Amino acid sequence: MSLIEMNVFAEERIATLALNNPRRRHALSYALLAELEHAVKELAAKRSVNVVIIQSSGPAFSSGHDLTEVLDQSPEDVHSLFLACGQTMRAVSHAPQVYIAQVQGIATAAGCQLVAACDLAVSARSARYATPGVKIGLFCSTPAVHVTRNIGRKKAAELLFTGEFMSAADALTYGLVNRVVDDEELEQETWKLARTIAQYSLNTLEVGKRTLHAQWQMNDDQALDFATEVIARQAADADAKEGIAAFLSKREPVWKDRSPQD
Amino acid sequence: MSLIEMNVFAEERIATLALNNPRRRHALSYALLAELEHAVKELAAKRSVNVVIIQSSGPAFSSGHDLTEVLDQSPEDVHSLFLACGQTMRAVSHAPQVYIAQVQGIATAAGCQLVAACDLAVSARSARYATPGVKIGLFCSTPAVHVTRNIGRKKAAELLFTGEFMSAADALTYGLVNRVVDDEELEQETWKLARTIAQYSLNTLEVGKRTLHAQWQMNDDQALDFATEVIARQAADADAKEGIAAFLSKREPVWKDRSPQD
Amino acid sequence: MSLIEMNVFAEERIATLALNNPRRRHALSYALLAELEHAVKELAAKRSVNVVIIQSSGPAFSSGHDLTEVLDQSPEDVHSLFLACGQTMRAVSHAPQVYIAQVQGIATAAGCQLVAACDLAVSARSARYATPGVKIGLFCSTPAVHVTRNIGRKKAAELLFTGEFMSAADALTYGLVNRVVDDEELEQETWKLARTIAQYSLNTLEVGKRTLHAQWQMNDDQALDFATEVIARQAADADAKEGIAAFLSKREPVWKDRSPQD
Repeated sequence: MSLIEMNVFAEERIATLALNNPRRRHALSYALLAELEHAVKELAAKRSVNVVIIQSSGPAFSSGHDLTEVLDQSPEDVHSLFLACGQTMRAVSHAPQVYIAQVQGIATAAGCQLVAACDLAVSARSARYATPGVKIGLFCSTPAVHVTRNIGRKKAAELLFTGEFMSAADALTYGLVNRVVDDEELEQETWKLARTIAQYSLNTLEVGKRTLHAQWQMNDDQALDFATEVIARQAADADAKEGIAAFLSKREPVWKDRSPQD
Repeated sequence: MSLIEMNVFAEERIATLALNNPRRRHALSYALLAELEHAVKELAAKRSVNVVIIQSSGPAFSSGHDLTEVLDQSPEDVHSLFLACGQTMRAVSHAPQVYIAQVQGIATAAGCQLVAACDLAVSARSARYATPGVKIGLFCSTPAVHVTRNIGRKKAAELLFTGEFMSAADALTYGLVNRVVDDEELEQETWKLARTIAQYSLNTLEVGKRTLHAQWQMNDDQALDFATEVIARQAADADAKEGIAAFLSKREPVWKDRSPQD
Repeated sequence: MSLIEMNVFAEERIATLALNNPRRRHALSYALLAELEHAVKELAAKRSVNVVIIQSSGPAFSSGHDLTEVLDQSPEDVHSLFLACGQTMRAVSHAPQVYIAQVQGIATAAGCQLVAACDLAVSARSARYATPGVKIGLFCSTPAVHVTRNIGRKKAAELLFTGEFMSAADALTYGLVNRVVDDEELEQETWKLARTIAQYSLNTLEVGKRTLHAQWQMNDDQALDFATEVIARQAADADAKEGIAAFLSKREPVWKDRSPQD
């Protein structure tokens, strides 16, 4: 059985990637990470998918790394595991699609990092978040990178130094997730958000996501110069011409990339 | 009729710049941007003004760019339009005065960017904010730069990828505005905030604003080194000497730059 | 009498540093800063202390610099004062211990900066925060550096340009403090937080704190590369091996660095 279950809903322009390792609380094992990275890259090549939902089931969204793959392994193998984890997170950032984490249960350590690495996150009200590595002598240094890109310094330090859980409500207040919904509405609300984004042009979303990530790395002046070039160039793209013309004549746009299949 | 209406209240040390293009929902047309940049630079030369309020009226604070200036124009003209927009935002950042956006109605795309580019913002309770370029195939890449300097990654991504409106209450929670007030108290509350700042020394505010922006671009160590030099030097300025002496003797300070006119 | 009162609770692996200059509202005078920096560095050498609480008493946590040391002093002396202040803040950042500010009363200017410079902060409900330098012609440029590392741009600009107080509740919402508690529970709640962190391995906390600070200075890719190396290496440390083994066999870990004294 596969550790990642991929479903493509071409009509909806939405795909789902379900973590499928319930006996180990959907741990991000080396094997699961490899499958996840592969799936993300496979979807990246599909021009028929705008949005990817990463989902899970049961009491854990994901408990992070499989510790049996860390303890008593060779330094080379442990290094490879963390490199693979980083490569998977990067694949999510580099994909043209918008990624939404659909979070139930607990999301801890690299599981919490995966939520932070997604573009958006919808959280069940009972979901909880933690970076508990400090409790086992292995500080959550890599989760810290993604968590601190989402939430402020004081709250990030608290999560990392205490290892304690943060509620879904706090995750919303401090910026780790976009929406908190009743548990029984989690899937429905995630799909509602996905469908909103799925109606747009993938070309537009791709340029937007790449620009957004690039400018986050720049100082204010560089970012404004860069974004100015991007938007001036995109204004000449077919989808922008169609989108603006449709808006001005109050009709629905028809995107050029909206082909029924790849 | 002018597209920007400037009023200087010299007694108050406050100026207002009113967007005046109501038939096009105060769109930031090339002509309006040119007037706005000119007005900001004219005020920058006035040592009698501490605070500038950017205001508007009606159902839109500003709807962003005039799309008829984007569609079917030459690439050079479109490029010039976005360069002009960036230059105007930069003029606000570089001005010695503190800029406050007084926001009613909808602030969308470059209109939302203008709110983000101001130092402070007071929002009517019914005001709403959006970066909806994704809906017309033209991702709000330039608004993204200013919006992401104000609010966290997850919420910024949501605004940019969905194009949907954010309420004034959420704008406050996530950091796009400073205060949300009842619609009928918008002007009064904006002026109250402006008057607080208007009582201080323009020299002090100018150094402060420049330092604040500069250190945001630096890493922690560079920023602390830089700010240490700035504050040690400013301590020798006439206004600091006067301010500290007044404080220690429990009297009101009299600022050196407080001349009745320029 | 000493301007800093140090107490080490070796059994608890917690130390306290009490500001002790009540007649001057615990002003961060040159002498107090020198003692504070010395104490922080002395504690940094102790492998028996995990957490340091900076505390104070009375109506002011700290009112910032002693203005008599700024007014009518030589430029060299003023420069030295601000350099000393920066060095003390840096000592807190560089210490292996986790620093918690326990805040009652008012924390203003460099006093507010000290709260921001600590890793964590617990605030009494009646505490208030301000960077009021603008009122005396001496913009809080150095406090701005630490405050802007904690809270967003709009709210930071408001604090700095108005000089007005922020409530404890707002300090929590905007990220300057971690917890707001009833005044009479301030010490108890601060110790509760400290004790949670005190049970972990100092080696782990030290690596974590250093990594956290380092990666905040980096772009996303650099940070992820850096943290990947750190965590892969730490996985081979004695405390990680013990922590993971203890976790997998459901027993309490025994940290290698848990020696009764230094």
